[in-house]
Amino acid sequence: MNEKVVKIGLVGFGTVGSGVVKILLENSDMIAAKTGLRLELDCVVDKDIETERPIKVPKDLLTDDINKLLDDTSIQIGLELVGGTSAAKEIQKKLLQAKKDVVTANKALLAEYGNELYEVARQHNRCIAFEAACAGGIPIITGLRTGLAGNDIQAMYGIVNGTSNYILCNMTTQNEAFSEALAQAQALGYAEADPTLDINGMDSAHKLAILSSIAFGYEIKLGDIYVEGIDNISKDDIRYGGEMGYALKLLAIGKKEQDGKVSLRVHPSFISTEHTLARVNGAFNAISVFGSAVGQVMFYGRGAGMMPTAGAVVADIIDVALGNSAKSFKHLHLRPRNEINELIDKIDNLVSRFYIRIMCKDQPGVIADWSKVLSDHQISISGALQHEGRGPENTVPVVITTHPTQQKNISGAVKDMEKLNSISGRPVCIRIVDIPEDKD
Amino acid sequence: MNEKVVKIGLVGFGTVGSGVVKILLENSDMIAAKTGLRLELDCVVDKDIETERPIKVPKDLLTDDINKLLDDTSIQIGLELVGGTSAAKEIQKKLLQAKKDVVTANKALLAEYGNELYEVARQHNRCIAFEAACAGGIPIITGLRTGLAGNDIQAMYGIVNGTSNYILCNMTTQNEAFSEALAQAQALGYAEADPTLDINGMDSAHKLAILSSIAFGYEIKLGDIYVEGIDNISKDDIRYGGEMGYALKLLAIGKKEQDGKVSLRVHPSFISTEHTLARVNGAFNAISVFGSAVGQVMFYGRGAGMMPTAGAVVADIIDVALGNSAKSFKHLHLRPRNEINELIDKIDNLVSRFYIRIMCKDQPGVIADWSKVLSDHQISISGALQHEGRGPENTVPVVITTHPTQQKNISGAVKDMEKLNSISGRPVCIRIVDIPEDKD
Repeated sequence: MNEKVVKIGLVGFGTVGSGVVKILLENSDMIAAKTGLRLELDCVVDKDIETERPIKVPKDLLTDDINKLLDDTSIQIGLELVGGTSAAKEIQKKLLQAKKDVVTANKALLAEYGNELYEVARQHNRCIAFEAACAGGIPIITGLRTGLAGNDIQAMYGIVNGTSNYILCNMTTQNEAFSEALAQAQALGYAEADPTLDINGMDSAHKLAILSSIAFGYEIKLGDIYVEGIDNISKDDIRYGGEMGYALKLLAIGKKEQDGKVSLRVHPSFISTEHTLARVNGAFNAISVFGSAVGQVMFYGRGAGMMPTAGAVVADIIDVALGNSAKSFKHLHLRPRNEINELIDKIDNLVSRFYIRIMCKDQPGVIADWSKVLSDHQISISGALQHEGRGPENTVPVVITTHPTQQKNISGAVKDMEKLNSISGRPVCIRIVDIPEDKD
Repeated sequence: MNEKVVKIGLVGFGTVGSGVVKILLENSDMIAAKTGLRLELDCVVDKDIETERPIKVPKDLLTDDINKLLDDTSIQIGLELVGGTSAAKEIQKKLLQAKKDVVTANKALLAEYGNELYEVARQHNRCIAFEAACAGGIPIITGLRTGLAGNDIQAMYGIVNGTSNYILCNMTTQNEAFSEALAQAQALGYAEADPTLDINGMDSAHKLAILSSIAFGYEIKLGDIYVEGIDNISKDDIRYGGEMGYALKLLAIGKKEQDGKVSLRVHPSFISTEHTLARVNGAFNAISVFGSAVGQVMFYGRGAGMMPTAGAVVADIIDVALGNSAKSFKHLHLRPRNEINELIDKIDNLVSRFYIRIMCKDQPGVIADWSKVLSDHQISISGALQHEGRGPENTVPVVITTHPTQQKNISGAVKDMEKLNSISGRPVCIRIVDIPEDKD
């Protein structure tokens, strides 16, 4: 069989980069047998070429000079696995300008500067492939762009950050406080030394920006997404929610509303413990996609980690080498900002059910107080539960669930509740998300 | 924006065909906006052009003469949605010979004559796309071929026949007999008037043949697959298995064994009720794929039905029109039969745990009898449970679970047990499948 040799240059010999090197060195025969492509790693660029990596590459491939890669016209594909947004952006631009197609796992960069980089790619008749940027090894980009292309995508609900899911699961099952669960995640390597982007929801927002661009065909900006992290979640709320049949997940949600607007948001969400997404444990990811033809499709697997992410990078290399990525990229039409600005829904308009927890002083008239505030804001109560046991200042926790209401009503009610003498501290509000379950 | 017009001819205006027409008529603008392709249905061929369909097409598109489609050189893509294997095979050949790419949902045809048809396609420099042939709306072909291309696929465990899953679920939750559950599935439209291929496992085998060809890169033949259906399953065994923590599923399994051989089989399987696949209910499908890099990835959704399957057909139309299918098809290298014959494992060599149920006469020495047979065949018992309650002829059911043992040992033991005076009837044997759960 004739093999086509595909020459590859890697920038960024870190964790994912090492995984890619491992696959290219070890699975090259398997890939050649299945695809007819002989993937050949010709250059590995990193600032640090001294530190020993878990994976060895021949010394002559290693360099700290990116020009060696850029000047080698035989190299067709450049991998940007540096991460971050400043240096990586310049590297991607240089690769494209040097007429190399780019494969990347850099969700932060694409979420913030994707439209700019796509434009550079188009100018140079190149493509950028980024399966690895969303949900690691799960082939969700391919699934949305190719397998579900016949569907009008109506909604996506995703657990797309393994670190925060791991923390929430441990808070739930081990009754740990947020800080304890975070420390454990860090000790086990599930959270970075600086876990800010994971726990404040921004990493999920990066992925949602990319996924929703493809799903809805819009030029999504990061600023279109409402983002709330898990850093203020208390284990008490997880327990109270659990008693009512809800599991707490950090969800990334993209949804076409009935008025044609698209709402994009990342926030802690109570979902029914019966829903499949509630059973996604530990560092796993899952995305439920609702399509006009297919109904619900769910993708599940490892959303991060050296080898899962590296596998997705190699899949993209193959897709680029086959010429498929270029076509998908060329035919990816995103409706530009001026057309869609008013189609992006604002969080204030969101209609949702809410979980509200207030700490009430043990005195007469308390219920009358808070129920009047809710009533004043047209909020209808679906359930209320006063827990026994004392909080600080002799308070007792009262948990209220609401019928669907607009976010702005809740925001108003919370402000008014804070002023009440009978309530201590700020009410806790968590959205209850009723994910449709596609059932027979 | 410049749109590229893609002309399409459909053969087979049945259920899935109607769904495709519906999407092409209703979602054409959405698809054009997202991909730049204007899909245009130009010809609908069916033997019956009189019967009213739920979806209307302009009269002048309808014809009972396939030559109108074949002779129209402007039509680039032909959809074969006739089903069955004899007429459909000729139709696909004619389409390919007329220089049209083929999109199909016909798993039976591809499983039996795929290699022959692929050869015809290659001769005419055309491609055959078949995302809809496996698991309906779930993008599993794309996932395996593109998204997981960087992985060496080690195993697949799939629930790929919704009818049998629906029947087994109802037998489990409603304690229905097989015949009752089947009748209900037929009444609700989940089973065909002739459900033979669904319940005897052949439909699952068709899908496994296609999926394992792509996953392992082998020219798989239907005869390579060991097939057992659900038609002999009794609700008692489902109940006894349930008491031991197992759910019964009809699994399609493709697995690379440690000796490099591939075992391919479809049979009723007891799996842990804790495994994600045990929670796949009703007519849904799910496939767990284990890749060398990614670990476990699961795809879940509707595996059949008019619109889910039609959505997959339209996805293929888009992929063909973009030129991607042609490249994937051209680069799909399957190792030919003469290389792989001895790599296909025989069921006799299978090592598995087993559930065995025997009906014992209530007399002394029974346990000594059957335990000696198992011991004679080197089968080690992991659990045994004698249920109270009487069967026919004053017998009591005894359920035995084994440690891993070879299929041929079990087959020998079953033969010997049948000869025992203390046992009535034929022992029931169901494999216990320990699907690895990729956990943290």
